[in-house]
Amino acid sequence: MSSLQDTIAAVRQEVCRLHAELTRYQLVVWTAGNVSGRIPGHELMVIKPSGVSYDDLTPEQMVVTDLHGVPVDSITTGTGQTISWHNPALSPSSDTAAHAYVYRNMPEVGGVVHTHSTYATAWAARGEDIPCVLTMMGDEFGGPIPVGPFALIGDDSIGHGIVETLKHSNSPAVLMQNHGPFTIGKDARAAVKAAVMCEEVAKTVHVSRQLGEPLPIDEAKIASLFDRYQNVYGR
Amino acid sequence: MSSLQDTIAAVRQEVCRLHAELTRYQLVVWTAGNVSGRIPGHELMVIKPSGVSYDDLTPEQMVVTDLHGVPVDSITTGTGQTISWHNPALSPSSDTAAHAYVYRNMPEVGGVVHTHSTYATAWAARGEDIPCVLTMMGDEFGGPIPVGPFALIGDDSIGHGIVETLKHSNSPAVLMQNHGPFTIGKDARAAVKAAVMCEEVAKTVHVSRQLGEPLPIDEAKIASLFDRYQNVYGR
Amino acid sequence: MSSLQDTIAAVRQEVCRLHAELTRYQLVVWTAGNVSGRIPGHELMVIKPSGVSYDDLTPEQMVVTDLHGVPVDSITTGTGQTISWHNPALSPSSDTAAHAYVYRNMPEVGGVVHTHSTYATAWAARGEDIPCVLTMMGDEFGGPIPVGPFALIGDDSIGHGIVETLKHSNSPAVLMQNHGPFTIGKDARAAVKAAVMCEEVAKTVHVSRQLGEPLPIDEAKIASLFDRYQNVYGR
Amino acid sequence: MSSLQDTIAAVRQEVCRLHAELTRYQLVVWTAGNVSGRIPGHELMVIKPSGVSYDDLTPEQMVVTDLHGVPVDSITTGTGQTISWHNPALSPSSDTAAHAYVYRNMPEVGGVVHTHSTYATAWAARGEDIPCVLTMMGDEFGGPIPVGPFALIGDDSIGHGIVETLKHSNSPAVLMQNHGPFTIGKDARAAVKAAVMCEEVAKTVHVSRQLGEPLPIDEAKIASLFDRYQNVYGR
Repeated sequence: MSSLQDTIAAVRQEVCRLHAELTRYQLVVWTAGNVSGRIPGHELMVIKPSGVSYDDLTPEQMVVTDLHGVPVDSITTGTGQTISWHNPALSPSSDTAAHAYVYRNMPEVGGVVHTHSTYATAWAARGEDIPCVLTMMGDEFGGPIPVGPFALIGDDSIGHGIVETLKHSNSPAVLMQNHGPFTIGKDARAAVKAAVMCEEVAKTVHVSRQLGEPLPIDEAKIASLFDRYQNVYGR
Repeated sequence: MSSLQDTIAAVRQEVCRLHAELTRYQLVVWTAGNVSGRIPGHELMVIKPSGVSYDDLTPEQMVVTDLHGVPVDSITTGTGQTISWHNPALSPSSDTAAHAYVYRNMPEVGGVVHTHSTYATAWAARGEDIPCVLTMMGDEFGGPIPVGPFALIGDDSIGHGIVETLKHSNSPAVLMQNHGPFTIGKDARAAVKAAVMCEEVAKTVHVSRQLGEPLPIDEAKIASLFDRYQNVYGR
Repeated sequence: MSSLQDTIAAVRQEVCRLHAELTRYQLVVWTAGNVSGRIPGHELMVIKPSGVSYDDLTPEQMVVTDLHGVPVDSITTGTGQTISWHNPALSPSSDTAAHAYVYRNMPEVGGVVHTHSTYATAWAARGEDIPCVLTMMGDEFGGPIPVGPFALIGDDSIGHGIVETLKHSNSPAVLMQNHGPFTIGKDARAAVKAAVMCEEVAKTVHVSRQLGEPLPIDEAKIASLFDRYQNVYGR
Repeated sequence: MSSLQDTIAAVRQEVCRLHAELTRYQLVVWTAGNVSGRIPGHELMVIKPSGVSYDDLTPEQMVVTDLHGVPVDSITTGTGQTISWHNPALSPSSDTAAHAYVYRNMPEVGGVVHTHSTYATAWAARGEDIPCVLTMMGDEFGGPIPVGPFALIGDDSIGHGIVETLKHSNSPAVLMQNHGPFTIGKDARAAVKAAVMCEEVAKTVHVSRQLGEPLPIDEAKIASLFDRYQNVYGR
């Protein structure tokens, strides 16, 4: 078996397994959320199939697509060799175009997650950034979690909105207006961690603001927290 | 075994199993919620028995009734053949009359669910529609989730209130005033999905409104989301 | 084995098992809640031991006490026969005096439950009755859930406050001020059901009131709901 | 095996196991919380390793450090004997310095817990003490749960803030501003109980205040509750 086939098997395993973190932390109901991972060194990604319940997911059902979201089950290498694998008879997630756009335009990103987690989506519905008032937010997000534009599914406008918003932010999470959070990471696991932490801070800051105003943390301290967490602590 | 007996066994299995989705998503406590399914092609439905805990439900306990909610354990076909099955020694859910009214009056409906899920019921207690401010609501509900009239149990007034409200709405969910949500679908699974999504959007919009006003989505965009989800995506 | 020994074994089994409903519905944390049951026909009750984790409870650990809360491991019958059983080397719950007072003063009560469930306790901390604005409340509580007096542990004042409040109410639940709910029933299972429903309606009415005023249900309709549920439906 | 080695094994087992209480009560997400325990009679403590998921924790992974947070795998006794044990190839939690400072400065403390539990952290973000308006708070905390200063990770300022705040309070919990709760106890289990109860009362008082002002409990009654719980009831 080629190294590419091994890599695809490993990423499928990991992407499949990580969906259990979305249900564990109650970030998703029914089939409303998805994880993807890049196949490093190739114009390929792996993503959840559409409409399959989280309980029923298997690694073999994870769909391999190119970076335009088209399912692919073989490639021909520069030396003319064809490497192939089985794709399931399932469509990739209806959010595949948005994931693919991120991989095409952010080469440093190896994983993308989309959910409609309750508190993050509640901020998104008001079109409000989550202010950075927790040391945990300084660590993970290095500032506020920004809102991205309202965008309809069907073309690149969701993907474009994600990328344009994240380019100007330390945050690995963006709240797409009236829609919900998308998160990125160096691999699928890091993107899932960002989705979990995004909902956690969305909830904590919401609860705090229900009875008054959280105390601000000054920007130099946020920068110091973020720098330490990314560099010294070695996220 | 006749095809009708096979169908009854299959619908009982499915209706029984789907109650586990109500507990998984915490839409119900104790025995306060129920799922039913139509037997296609017959004036029959299958519903949860009254007073049985969700943990203890078995397919054989699901009660087969006619479309007036009367338990039935045999029918005579046009050719004079009698087809029979076992019904449990249990009463059908005390909400059976409402389910039956829906099946009598909405022939396209194959499944009905009733819960008192917390956030949906909280909107129902204020008699307030849930505004459509999430793309997920546009997809699933095609507009606001409407409130139905206050109605007492005991006659057809709950069923009548459900049907009259849903006839004028894209939504598969209605919030019966001071009572709780009823949802419909092409089969029992679709009605359960609608119950799960109804509570999810009820909670998210509630949380969003706690700290301000969610941004509206204009009607043309809601129509576009709903149309795509029902047709292109193929719900 | 005598019939009394059989009854004690059965009530211990049931009281033990019912604690799992308190954790299932998240009405309790750590060891902060307890269930008791009367031994019918005797001046005896069975209650949770103090300080034991819910995971570790066994039927044999349930403490048999008299109706003043004193552990008892034998009685002498009118015919001079002594019937004995094993009691664990554990103290009964620190709330035993309150349970015992209820059994002494409300002969129709066969089960008592105490929790500090979040939403019910939040109403108790404000000293506010929960208004009857849900049909489910009409069914189960027949009106508002009343607040009882502030009372310190150590004598009969908690038990007295419970009994005086419930005597003037349809409700099987009372919210002891700044403390938490106590519920009663014809047996331990009914008291647990009342504790579950009390938290459910406490939460739903709380959530409803966060964004406005729930619509009232008029008293004749509440009376009709309660009457039907207690009599026709046969609680 | 020496008695010290036995003690280390027992404390590792207990500290490992207690992390399951943090997840059970949803006080932590991902790896964001930690438990430690003192090795009685030695300048040693045991703490969670950094970055390991709660599901994957084993007793052998718990890191033994000195009371400055430096990993240690042997000591030499007064008689010149060397006692050694295996430490994992893992760093101790990034919060180790704060735990160690508490052990150095509060000799009566045998266990420390840190979480970012939602409701406690929400109070911390506003810099507000939780008022003592529940009898359960009187029992466990003997008054309000105090806020500690804003402090950055990296030196002793978090530990110093914890100790200075707790020295002037009955409470075993402190809410570090914009950060989250730290709790102490006579051993690791007591500190975990304090973390569980801290979140429970943080949530209940929050919910109560959402719809009005909780009724105060006068100080003499709080003192009576605390005294009884600590002494008579024998916490």
